[in-house]
Amino acid sequence: MKILILNGPNLNRLGKREPEIYGSLTLEQIYDRIKQLADDLKVEVEFFQSNHEGELIDLLHLAVETAKAVVFNPGAFTHYSIALRDAVASIEIPVVEVHLSNIHAREEFRHQSVIAPVAAGQIAGLGPDSYLLGLRAAVALARSGRKTK
Amino acid sequence: MKILILNGPNLNRLGKREPEIYGSLTLEQIYDRIKQLADDLKVEVEFFQSNHEGELIDLLHLAVETAKAVVFNPGAFTHYSIALRDAVASIEIPVVEVHLSNIHAREEFRHQSVIAPVAAGQIAGLGPDSYLLGLRAAVALARSGRKTK
Amino acid sequence: MKILILNGPNLNRLGKREPEIYGSLTLEQIYDRIKQLADDLKVEVEFFQSNHEGELIDLLHLAVETAKAVVFNPGAFTHYSIALRDAVASIEIPVVEVHLSNIHAREEFRHQSVIAPVAAGQIAGLGPDSYLLGLRAAVALARSGRKTK
Amino acid sequence: MKILILNGPNLNRLGKREPEIYGSLTLEQIYDRIKQLADDLKVEVEFFQSNHEGELIDLLHLAVETAKAVVFNPGAFTHYSIALRDAVASIEIPVVEVHLSNIHAREEFRHQSVIAPVAAGQIAGLGPDSYLLGLRAAVALARSGRKTK
Amino acid sequence: MKILILNGPNLNRLGKREPEIYGSLTLEQIYDRIKQLADDLKVEVEFFQSNHEGELIDLLHLAVETAKAVVFNPGAFTHYSIALRDAVASIEIPVVEVHLSNIHAREEFRHQSVIAPVAAGQIAGLGPDSYLLGLRAAVALARSGRKTK
Amino acid sequence: MKILILNGPNLNRLGKREPEIYGSLTLEQIYDRIKQLADDLKVEVEFFQSNHEGELIDLLHLAVETAKAVVFNPGAFTHYSIALRDAVASIEIPVVEVHLSNIHAREEFRHQSVIAPVAAGQIAGLGPDSYLLGLRAAVALARSGRKTK
Amino acid sequence: MKILILNGPNLNRLGKREPEIYGSLTLEQIYDRIKQLADDLKVEVEFFQSNHEGELIDLLHLAVETAKAVVFNPGAFTHYSIALRDAVASIEIPVVEVHLSNIHAREEFRHQSVIAPVAAGQIAGLGPDSYLLGLRAAVALARSGRKTK
Amino acid sequence: MKILILNGPNLNRLGKREPEIYGSLTLEQIYDRIKQLADDLKVEVEFFQSNHEGELIDLLHLAVETAKAVVFNPGAFTHYSIALRDAVASIEIPVVEVHLSNIHAREEFRHQSVIAPVAAGQIAGLGPDSYLLGLRAAVALARSGRKTK
Amino acid sequence: MKILILNGPNLNRLGKREPEIYGSLTLEQIYDRIKQLADDLKVEVEFFQSNHEGELIDLLHLAVETAKAVVFNPGAFTHYSIALRDAVASIEIPVVEVHLSNIHAREEFRHQSVIAPVAAGQIAGLGPDSYLLGLRAAVALARSGRKTK
Amino acid sequence: MKILILNGPNLNRLGKREPEIYGSLTLEQIYDRIKQLADDLKVEVEFFQSNHEGELIDLLHLAVETAKAVVFNPGAFTHYSIALRDAVASIEIPVVEVHLSNIHAREEFRHQSVIAPVAAGQIAGLGPDSYLLGLRAAVALARSGRKTK
Amino acid sequence: MKILILNGPNLNRLGKREPEIYGSLTLEQIYDRIKQLADDLKVEVEFFQSNHEGELIDLLHLAVETAKAVVFNPGAFTHYSIALRDAVASIEIPVVEVHLSNIHAREEFRHQSVIAPVAAGQIAGLGPDSYLLGLRAAVALARSGRKTK
Amino acid sequence: MKILILNGPNLNRLGKREPEIYGSLTLEQIYDRIKQLADDLKVEVEFFQSNHEGELIDLLHLAVETAKAVVFNPGAFTHYSIALRDAVASIEIPVVEVHLSNIHAREEFRHQSVIAPVAAGQIAGLGPDSYLLGLRAAVALARSGRKTK
Repeated sequence: MKILILNGPNLNRLGKREPEIYGSLTLEQIYDRIKQLADDLKVEVEFFQSNHEGELIDLLHLAVETAKAVVFNPGAFTHYSIALRDAVASIEIPVVEVHLSNIHAREEFRHQSVIAPVAAGQIAGLGPDSYLLGLRAAVALARSGRKTK
Repeated sequence: MKILILNGPNLNRLGKREPEIYGSLTLEQIYDRIKQLADDLKVEVEFFQSNHEGELIDLLHLAVETAKAVVFNPGAFTHYSIALRDAVASIEIPVVEVHLSNIHAREEFRHQSVIAPVAAGQIAGLGPDSYLLGLRAAVALARSGRKTK
Repeated sequence: MKILILNGPNLNRLGKREPEIYGSLTLEQIYDRIKQLADDLKVEVEFFQSNHEGELIDLLHLAVETAKAVVFNPGAFTHYSIALRDAVASIEIPVVEVHLSNIHAREEFRHQSVIAPVAAGQIAGLGPDSYLLGLRAAVALARSGRKTK
Repeated sequence: MKILILNGPNLNRLGKREPEIYGSLTLEQIYDRIKQLADDLKVEVEFFQSNHEGELIDLLHLAVETAKAVVFNPGAFTHYSIALRDAVASIEIPVVEVHLSNIHAREEFRHQSVIAPVAAGQIAGLGPDSYLLGLRAAVALARSGRKTK
Repeated sequence: MKILILNGPNLNRLGKREPEIYGSLTLEQIYDRIKQLADDLKVEVEFFQSNHEGELIDLLHLAVETAKAVVFNPGAFTHYSIALRDAVASIEIPVVEVHLSNIHAREEFRHQSVIAPVAAGQIAGLGPDSYLLGLRAAVALARSGRKTK
Repeated sequence: MKILILNGPNLNRLGKREPEIYGSLTLEQIYDRIKQLADDLKVEVEFFQSNHEGELIDLLHLAVETAKAVVFNPGAFTHYSIALRDAVASIEIPVVEVHLSNIHAREEFRHQSVIAPVAAGQIAGLGPDSYLLGLRAAVALARSGRKTK
Repeated sequence: MKILILNGPNLNRLGKREPEIYGSLTLEQIYDRIKQLADDLKVEVEFFQSNHEGELIDLLHLAVETAKAVVFNPGAFTHYSIALRDAVASIEIPVVEVHLSNIHAREEFRHQSVIAPVAAGQIAGLGPDSYLLGLRAAVALARSGRKTK
Repeated sequence: MKILILNGPNLNRLGKREPEIYGSLTLEQIYDRIKQLADDLKVEVEFFQSNHEGELIDLLHLAVETAKAVVFNPGAFTHYSIALRDAVASIEIPVVEVHLSNIHAREEFRHQSVIAPVAAGQIAGLGPDSYLLGLRAAVALARSGRKTK
Repeated sequence: MKILILNGPNLNRLGKREPEIYGSLTLEQIYDRIKQLADDLKVEVEFFQSNHEGELIDLLHLAVETAKAVVFNPGAFTHYSIALRDAVASIEIPVVEVHLSNIHAREEFRHQSVIAPVAAGQIAGLGPDSYLLGLRAAVALARSGRKTK
Repeated sequence: MKILILNGPNLNRLGKREPEIYGSLTLEQIYDRIKQLADDLKVEVEFFQSNHEGELIDLLHLAVETAKAVVFNPGAFTHYSIALRDAVASIEIPVVEVHLSNIHAREEFRHQSVIAPVAAGQIAGLGPDSYLLGLRAAVALARSGRKTK
Repeated sequence: MKILILNGPNLNRLGKREPEIYGSLTLEQIYDRIKQLADDLKVEVEFFQSNHEGELIDLLHLAVETAKAVVFNPGAFTHYSIALRDAVASIEIPVVEVHLSNIHAREEFRHQSVIAPVAAGQIAGLGPDSYLLGLRAAVALARSGRKTK
Repeated sequence: MKILILNGPNLNRLGKREPEIYGSLTLEQIYDRIKQLADDLKVEVEFFQSNHEGELIDLLHLAVETAKAVVFNPGAFTHYSIALRDAVASIEIPVVEVHLSNIHAREEFRHQSVIAPVAAGQIAGLGPDSYLLGLRAAVALARSGRKTK
């Protein structure tokens, strides 16, 4: 069983980018920790990061063929990309939305997620653990064969 | 005379995607029906679909050289892509906005189109017929040589 | 098969009224063009115009007995007459909302239609062609025996 | 003592109109039940229904001469007819506002009544019983000789 | 030269209706004072009052044939009748909006006039004098042959 | 058959509290009138008043065991207690919301009820009669075995 | 009897300033026309113009000693100077608010007057005639000895 | 090490309350699953549920003495209890906010959490797994000795 | 003469709770300073703190019997507890609202007090001195026998 | 030590101006009471009143040289003068904002103070005592050498 | 050719006022740098600073006679002085709006400039360089003889 | 030292696109003028234009390696691309936002820039000079080694 770990814009800058908000781990270091947990849970993981909204949509569409669930950090697209929302809604596999930072404690415009209403759930503010908990949730959903709880 | 039929994000998922909203026809099947009407109206049609906002902008810019009008379903970009709005405004040929579903009867955030104010007109809620009526409107505008009525 | 062509307030002033917005054709001249298309489509059409909200509601109620679909330009009532909205919702035949001008490109208060959410669809901004396309859509709906697509 | 039972737009469609919201009784059947209670309470009742805002205003003005109170279901006018509000405010007899459906549980725009602030009270959501309870309230007010409690 | 003095809903209740807001003069008594001033100004005046929005629209349309200007108190329609606004905009003669009470000092929803933007001007809060000043303004506009200053 | 009459915060102050708004009857005197009607309708009534939101929630939860319907005046909680709303939604018996004063005619923040959307209906502004009409409505609902009309 | 004619910021630029909005008469030419009417009405007039909010407040305070009413064009202060509003409210003589242009037909932020609620009335959009009608209204109020109608 | 599992209003109704939203497990059954994970993670857990806002505040205050972290489902208080927010902010131990249902996909008023900005993070929409993931997050925070990531 | 000093939620955490906002004095230390001033002013004081909205309401109701005025810090209830507002409005003795911190300089949602409109006055931002000045104000009001200035 | 007592627009009208809101004492009589308390507290006081925003800014700038604190009633400027706010923020000495009336119980637009966020604190609604309590607060702050508590 | 350098309220406090926002240079030191650049560009400059809105309006009016363009930092008036906006609009010479700080990165109420829509352009956030760039822009505009680009 | 000149969507249409708003120069002609100034300032410049949001993000990330500052015209992305905002925030070099047209004088939705709060500064409305002034500002920042003034 494969789980897609999908990352949106600017997450390639992790570690270098505003570390007081996003922590000092790079995306690669987070990938290592996810990989480790995936091994424990006996699932495969595939990683993608893109700054292009269209590419993320394409990847979500393709995931239907190759993966059983998605752990998705949409980055700033969280707050306005209705196109990504529609892409999440248009696929049959569960998508768990994750955020490193507590988006509810930041600027007003980051409190709202246009994607959350069509995601299976949202995990925010727990740093890299958000991905690990998101992977657990995604695996549980995939195993239950349901798109949402 | 050529008319560009342009489709935005997630419309490649038609038929598979939430059929209770978008119907069970695939985009290819809709293209067939458009093609048929185009033949009746004695115009050429060219089809493009993209999930990439930038690509849609590029295509609108290029259309000036090759087409006399555009039938455009901007999908979810309808509601926030001011860049697409500016692209529509920046070209000299008429653009008719079409939607399969009745966007005015769906979620609040889909009631507003940022593109409609610069389009020649808007046709929504009539399923695949939205495209056919849109093609008729586009041809009429192109023949009159005007960008709006 | 009969289709009702229903026009709301101030449309009797067409041709005389702000021609830069509404064009120079009178309502009678538009009726002629609709009649012609109706003949082509082999349907009957009946025309009414009223400045009275209550009369429009009465006519929609009566249409159930005599017509198979309605092409409706609610004029300014579009933006606030919840009573007309309820009348459209209360009848079993399809209603296609049409507008001569692009209401989305005019004053803010004209962007919102309280009737569109219960109409089969909306066609706006294409001048007298809005009626012709509306008639085609109404006939297609009536022939399919469905209230919405 | 006479009580006016006044009904606004589309209520003549009761029974036929969206029965999942408004129930399957026709207005006439509701009138029968009101008549029965009126007999018990030893009051006369007079019934009017109109889809015309102006006619409803005229009837409210005239009621001052002939009735001691009004049970009024303003239908969709509830939400925007400030003219009806002013008519209710301009007469000396009590007006009890009633609704078949629970307007507070429906679309956002139905939560607000522009008439309630000048009515004696509002009864909503109890189906035909809303009229019966409204009649009781109107009779009690009329007997007390007061416009509001 | 004839000036139309047009009155909207509930103004037939003047004198009886909430005298602390609208004063104790009846509409007829105000008409007498207007008539007197009209004689001084050497113009004819014609009076209409209606509680029906549609009738007021009809009267405005007809005024084009018979009058040179309109003094219009739209009553509660002031605040929501976009149909009346469009009627005022659709005629070529000047319309001066008048109000007995100071609408700006009353409930929030009375502060806004949807008609004022297309009227020649607005006079509010000066009791019956609002009509007299409105007549003077209308006559001046009519004599200048201009729709607005 | 037992009906629970439940009263929220500050209603124990009735008679002493702002009598120009709430009348001069005490809660006990209102209870007497309710008791009398209950006898006529051949139902039992049980009375509770609490200023504690949590206690009101507990009582609603417990009512499932002991009562067939609830007449509930949530007092100021009406306007913001989503917890009480959820409690009302979580029980299987009908709840009729009642108010002594016309909440729609008071301060802006009292126009909205967060409880009404999940109540069977709302009766407001008719003084102590609101309870009596509420009891009738509750009994009718309980006898019909339905939670809403 | 003396009437104060008070003008706010930028009105000294009349004639030179955006003549398509404010007309081509200078403030002095308007003063001449006011003076003429004052002679007809047998009242004295005094003229002030200031770009300083504080000076306008001082002048309103002083007017109590020397004038019986004020005709006041607050210019742009109309829309935000609560201090001027309080000054108008704090004096015992009537103040008639006037505007050359139709503020209701201009930018959104000019639709609201913070001064109108405490003025005797408002006259807008009638060009220099706004002042002449304002003078008539002020004289009528002063003669009646009342601050508002 | 002890972790407090704190539940707000109406959660004692779990299993009985709207199972299509909250699932069919009772709170006790969820507690069992939490207990099991706690054993695996080698931590103690303590469970409390209250419908009283004040009691929840007291429990948060007391938790400082007895627990190292809190997993908190504030139920409906999530959306307006600033007092609970202040209680969370006032204690030194980490609080992880959890929700059974996807609050972002429900009614508008449930999208906003007043508690999230002061919580360590938020996990929503994953059914009982929200608690299990919340426990993992709480334990990780407690072991790191930090209040937020 | 006795004055009730009433404190709302989380104020028992003073000294421990976010000292950079609320200072390092405990509630007891503040009580000592209040007691001292009370002695100087020759009045008795009674102190209560509760995290329970209902208990605070009860205490306000009871205060009528035992105290001549209240100094009240409603804590977070300030911003949404309409029930407390109604309790303050329902009693005959003056209530002075006090806050340690400058609520007007904190988060947006703390700028608005729903209690202030029915309190005698508000003193905010002066640390423990807010209580001392509040006591002076309460004593002055109590001695004047008036509920507000 | 000198404290500046600064008063904004229209306060020179005290005693004469709307006494039901502002009381019947003149500003001079209030100055006498302030002077008396200043003597008791052994501080000097200096009084200024101006209707000119710019002059109040100048006085605040100058106060830095001559005074140790300011008691400031900004009058209507409270609600919109960001320039005064910046002036208060730009000086190093504490400013205590005072109001005679309870601004929170008046018109909506008076609930917000743009100055409060940069003032040391706000005292409102206690009549002339607001100044006396403000002086006590200002002296305490000045003696502590701090700009805010 | 002369350019007016105009500064609004509190800018005389530069260097002393909140240096973390506005920098440590005094206004005089900035004037020196502007003077230097003016010499390079071979234009004269004249400097004014005032805390009085009216004085700034007067100066803008006078500038028409003496200067060819204005570099204007309206300070806090930027956000609410419609009177200054009208003054800028009423003169024929170009006005370039400048700000030392990045107003878009500060409090919400500073994001909006009421003056920008009528200015030639806006330069913000570049410290004293905003003035230097503003001078270059003003000179270019003046030399082109146009009010806007 | 190299400065990146980055242009967003539709700017490749300059000269052809709505010349009344954007002027008649093409982007290439503007590049020539920038190049000339760069030579004067002795810096290198590199030019990019893209209609793709993702590509602009990539280019900003890469700029860290190759350039010392960026002059950025985000076109329509200015108003909604939070992803671009985050990209600007995530890099260590200064970004100066420029606009050809005066965005503050155009449609409401163009008044707000989501990028400005994280840019060094904003220059708008000065036509091609906006770029030249932006280059000066960027060079000054780069030379000072600071990201913002």
